[in-house]
Amino acid sequence: MKNMILFNKPCLTGKEFDYIHEAIGSGQISGNGQFTKQCQSFLEKSTSAKKCLLTTSCTDALEMSAILARIEPGDEVIMPSFTFPSTANAFILRGAKIVFIDSRPDHPGVDERQIEAAVTERTKAIVPVHYAGVACDMDVIAAVATRHALFVIEDAAQAIDSFFIDATKKRIPLGSIGEFGTFSFHETKNIQAGEGGALLINRPEHIERSEIVWEKGTNRAAFWRGDVDKYGWVDIGSSFLPSELTAAFLYAQLEALRTTQDRRIDIWNQYNDGLQSIFQQAKLRAPYVPSFATNNGHMFYAVCESERIRADLIAFLRKKDIYSVFHYQSLHAAPYFQALHDGRDLPWADAYSSRLLRLPMHPELTNSQIARVVSGITDFFNSP
Amino acid sequence: MKNMILFNKPCLTGKEFDYIHEAIGSGQISGNGQFTKQCQSFLEKSTSAKKCLLTTSCTDALEMSAILARIEPGDEVIMPSFTFPSTANAFILRGAKIVFIDSRPDHPGVDERQIEAAVTERTKAIVPVHYAGVACDMDVIAAVATRHALFVIEDAAQAIDSFFIDATKKRIPLGSIGEFGTFSFHETKNIQAGEGGALLINRPEHIERSEIVWEKGTNRAAFWRGDVDKYGWVDIGSSFLPSELTAAFLYAQLEALRTTQDRRIDIWNQYNDGLQSIFQQAKLRAPYVPSFATNNGHMFYAVCESERIRADLIAFLRKKDIYSVFHYQSLHAAPYFQALHDGRDLPWADAYSSRLLRLPMHPELTNSQIARVVSGITDFFNSP
Repeated sequence: MKNMILFNKPCLTGKEFDYIHEAIGSGQISGNGQFTKQCQSFLEKSTSAKKCLLTTSCTDALEMSAILARIEPGDEVIMPSFTFPSTANAFILRGAKIVFIDSRPDHPGVDERQIEAAVTERTKAIVPVHYAGVACDMDVIAAVATRHALFVIEDAAQAIDSFFIDATKKRIPLGSIGEFGTFSFHETKNIQAGEGGALLINRPEHIERSEIVWEKGTNRAAFWRGDVDKYGWVDIGSSFLPSELTAAFLYAQLEALRTTQDRRIDIWNQYNDGLQSIFQQAKLRAPYVPSFATNNGHMFYAVCESERIRADLIAFLRKKDIYSVFHYQSLHAAPYFQALHDGRDLPWADAYSSRLLRLPMHPELTNSQIARVVSGITDFFNSP
Repeated sequence: MKNMILFNKPCLTGKEFDYIHEAIGSGQISGNGQFTKQCQSFLEKSTSAKKCLLTTSCTDALEMSAILARIEPGDEVIMPSFTFPSTANAFILRGAKIVFIDSRPDHPGVDERQIEAAVTERTKAIVPVHYAGVACDMDVIAAVATRHALFVIEDAAQAIDSFFIDATKKRIPLGSIGEFGTFSFHETKNIQAGEGGALLINRPEHIERSEIVWEKGTNRAAFWRGDVDKYGWVDIGSSFLPSELTAAFLYAQLEALRTTQDRRIDIWNQYNDGLQSIFQQAKLRAPYVPSFATNNGHMFYAVCESERIRADLIAFLRKKDIYSVFHYQSLHAAPYFQALHDGRDLPWADAYSSRLLRLPMHPELTNSQIARVVSGITDFFNSP
């Protein structure tokens, strides 16, 4: 057990328990209390979003986006096939038809050049997923959205503290570019709360309704502010709020963002440096960060030459107590969707499904553990 | 501040922090870990449900029920008007038309005698709400459901540890009678986790799909059990799981259920005894527990003669630092629904909206505080 190098490990930053005690002492452990407000305000500042609302998961933030974009049966939503089922389910639950797009050849993110051809009169939204925290080409996507009057909803589940670099070299926080952006605080993410998420609302005209949808379709937020004298049921909605227990834990994590990020990026760089010779021999394809993107140290992945090699490498590392894992299965080919898919080949989505490998990544990884992972991989490829 | 008698106060039972530490130590703080399983198994044993799944809220458990009952646009769902918006929203989000029914004259629960007249060919489900933890007449409701092949989904948000007593005098746990039952662990409930809930699945044929819908539409649960060798997207779903942080807190609360319940029922009885003379003078109407129901000490409510008297009484108590509150606004008359309602009068739902008052209720209320509330009310009615 002691020598195991886990793929992921939930990490404390120090103040989590103090803050949970404080929440309980304050007399409020249900949602929308002081820690919720502090987290929201932290995220508003760091992303320049007009408004942030914590949610119980990134899935729930995507569902809120779908409600706020008034997605209706028959509407079409464009998104990459190489993503988690929640990206699609959030819109299917509102009746949308999903149109899946391939990944880029050089990166698992959506191939932005293929989006416009998929737009029809029923298209209502584009959902770029910033895979591994690496930005999609938001200039291209924004241009398509503007030409066809579409919503852009950024699935930034993995993309906290990461940026899109626009044509003028300006760094724009991911999640703050589309009408809506969604973060995840699942235990596998850079900033964690076990389960959790947040919605960024980037246009003022959506703020009022977002608070209502968040609070079970009631105008409770306006009531607490004193804007209305009684609160009632005014719209559809759900219980999207996490508890103050969750928000307290999350706030401790957010306060430690820089320390966490510095360590994750350091680990990422150690992997990248250590594996250079393997990459140069073309035995593994290195992760790619386009010039319009930044790296937030969320994930270190590499692409194997075949599914078979990936399976052998995972097994080889596992024998050395190193836990590496694969990732998404293309959604266009999933049991739920294959009969609904229009038959287009999406070869890169399939390639990443069968050949992408993720290496252990959490801030408590030691440098010697990273070196063990690097030599494990090197041994696998260089042993006779 | 010291003399304030709060309407509600989140209460610790002792082991909450130990268990949260344990969850973190176990290396899993995302959902469906050891504490989730312990909570689910506790609730399965105490209710005899076939399966229990924790959720992030009772709202989410209701939404899961709506998905599992395959509610579709055009389906009709019958429920009381005197309930929280989530009871309705969960089904409206699936496209259902809601048909609201009046409350009983003697109790805020749905008037079971009015349900059958509201059944049409499009009716798919009845959603009884066990208001104040007091059972609806489930024999009558089950008979209607059987005659018309309808789902029964019990909104048991307030009804943990409460029972329906059937014609043979058997005590049946609320939440375990319909196809599905839903609990809330919001901080205002007997058992709390800040925000939280649970779904009871009472028919074996719904278990497999419930695990899929719960896990974002994937067959991850079957994968972990080893029933399938890869997990993928097989259905619609959402992220309905709370974190292990939440489940750890909740498990501590569940273990202390008996102590909590004994104290709440004791408080309830002290109110009831203390207010007998006011009830006998017919200045306030006492809460009513029908012979087919039990009292779980969730809420002590009373019904005032008019909305004006209620407002005066709330203000009078407030001056004595006692926080009493009103409750739901009839949903058939809510801003969101009034144009959709078919125009039937629902006088008792309106009466409880305007005249029902809830007294402070939490296990840390002291006997002297209860006596202060009782004399506050007595003074209000008996002072010249």
